[in-house]
Amino acid sequence: MDLWYTEKHTDGSGITLRVKASLFSGESAFQKLDILETCEYGRMMLLDGLVMVTERDEFVYHDMITHPALFTHPNPHKVLVIGGGDGGTIREIVRHPEVELAVLCEIDGLVIEKSIELLPSMACDIDGSNPRVKLHVDDGIAYIREHAGEFDVILIDSTDPIGPAVGLFEEDFYRTVAAALKDDGIMVAQSESPFYHADIQKGMYRNLRSVFPIVEMYQAFIPTYPSGFWSFAFASKRYHPVRDFDRERAARRTFHTRYYNEDLHLGAFMLPTFARENIAR
Amino acid sequence: MDLWYTEKHTDGSGITLRVKASLFSGESAFQKLDILETCEYGRMMLLDGLVMVTERDEFVYHDMITHPALFTHPNPHKVLVIGGGDGGTIREIVRHPEVELAVLCEIDGLVIEKSIELLPSMACDIDGSNPRVKLHVDDGIAYIREHAGEFDVILIDSTDPIGPAVGLFEEDFYRTVAAALKDDGIMVAQSESPFYHADIQKGMYRNLRSVFPIVEMYQAFIPTYPSGFWSFAFASKRYHPVRDFDRERAARRTFHTRYYNEDLHLGAFMLPTFARENIAR
Repeated sequence: MDLWYTEKHTDGSGITLRVKASLFSGESAFQKLDILETCEYGRMMLLDGLVMVTERDEFVYHDMITHPALFTHPNPHKVLVIGGGDGGTIREIVRHPEVELAVLCEIDGLVIEKSIELLPSMACDIDGSNPRVKLHVDDGIAYIREHAGEFDVILIDSTDPIGPAVGLFEEDFYRTVAAALKDDGIMVAQSESPFYHADIQKGMYRNLRSVFPIVEMYQAFIPTYPSGFWSFAFASKRYHPVRDFDRERAARRTFHTRYYNEDLHLGAFMLPTFARENIAR
Repeated sequence: MDLWYTEKHTDGSGITLRVKASLFSGESAFQKLDILETCEYGRMMLLDGLVMVTERDEFVYHDMITHPALFTHPNPHKVLVIGGGDGGTIREIVRHPEVELAVLCEIDGLVIEKSIELLPSMACDIDGSNPRVKLHVDDGIAYIREHAGEFDVILIDSTDPIGPAVGLFEEDFYRTVAAALKDDGIMVAQSESPFYHADIQKGMYRNLRSVFPIVEMYQAFIPTYPSGFWSFAFASKRYHPVRDFDRERAARRTFHTRYYNEDLHLGAFMLPTFARENIAR
């Protein structure tokens, strides 16, 4: 059987991947979940028919949503992930020895359950084996309202701003995140493709700037995401991701990262002109 | 008609683009040439069935094959392009006021002819209207053998190392390029995707290092190329693309570049770990 998964990223463009088998197809109260075995990208998780992660290129996304914040903050003890039910972001967080507690707040228990079962290379630290990790199956917005001033770093590992994630791109939400952070806390959120999503970026960065004094965009390439060119928002109360970055500390890290490194950390903030222009004040 | 062009980048992955019409389909002595009108990427040129350029994302490739070398060299008077028959690289070169002569040496006259006819936004300076531009329809290797010590910058704007471009990735060719450059000359060549083409990169950079004292890889995102993550080799006899880069001069440029800027110039050389490892000595 010559089976291909094709995702339209826009009306007139998309990606296509050859598939060996469907491992799971189901629906939660929130969204449709599929896990496919691809021929070249390993296992792949879809939510509402859109690629969330593949085993082959997830290292880019998970390195880049995690390490820039955790190597900028001088002492990240308590870290919260909102979304990220596959566990890849938690896996990267707990590689930092300074982290005492990593909390995952994912709205959809089915994503966690199936990731533990079918994506163990990502879910290895959310399966109950790691005492530094706590799981909450809950709405992230409700959760952070009850945890003011608790976290050093909060990572928003969300889907696109459709379905359950719409609220995660709004100014009110960013105010609640800021309140849940300590006085020197850092937030990072995935912030879509500068190539395809200029309008979403414009609104999202305007909302962030109305809440945080420091807001910067950084980039990574993710082959299975629309255009392959992806971005993250770094928002902070005190630390600047370039000026306050301790390159030597990042260079001394005790674990190997296939995408992130101390030079790339700096380079990731040096954006193409059109991407800068998307979020110009 | 719901017409889609699909290019397999590997056996199990590819890109798909919706097409309005085929504008040209023909064959030269060297390769098959197609020009399609897409719905979202404007006009698109294919050689032997592979995407070479689209009107929508060509600015990335042409900015990045041209400006890093031309803003590193303090005085680029004579510049040669091998390949690049669409004209986009020449268009960017002649934006630099220091350039007195830009030579295009393209093996396939049909590519030039059809680009002038159907891709005028790229071919605007190879249509005979620009007195600083000279065209040679010739084999690039033969051409540079007869032009020792002539050029400040040589840009290798080639296809993948299959078909007529195989020789453009070999050590002998790089020796001929080095001989055609002045003592402080710079060569840049497209160097494939670090994500998919580690083997090609390994051989190519080994060949370059056996000829040039300074060899560095830099990156750009190009949505319609395999994986979206692309690279270029900067090879030089004297100038280092980071240490000898005059950021202030690049910042004073008198023309707008949608991808390149003086900060991105530096960030482009800060590579993901896996890309560094592809070309580690």
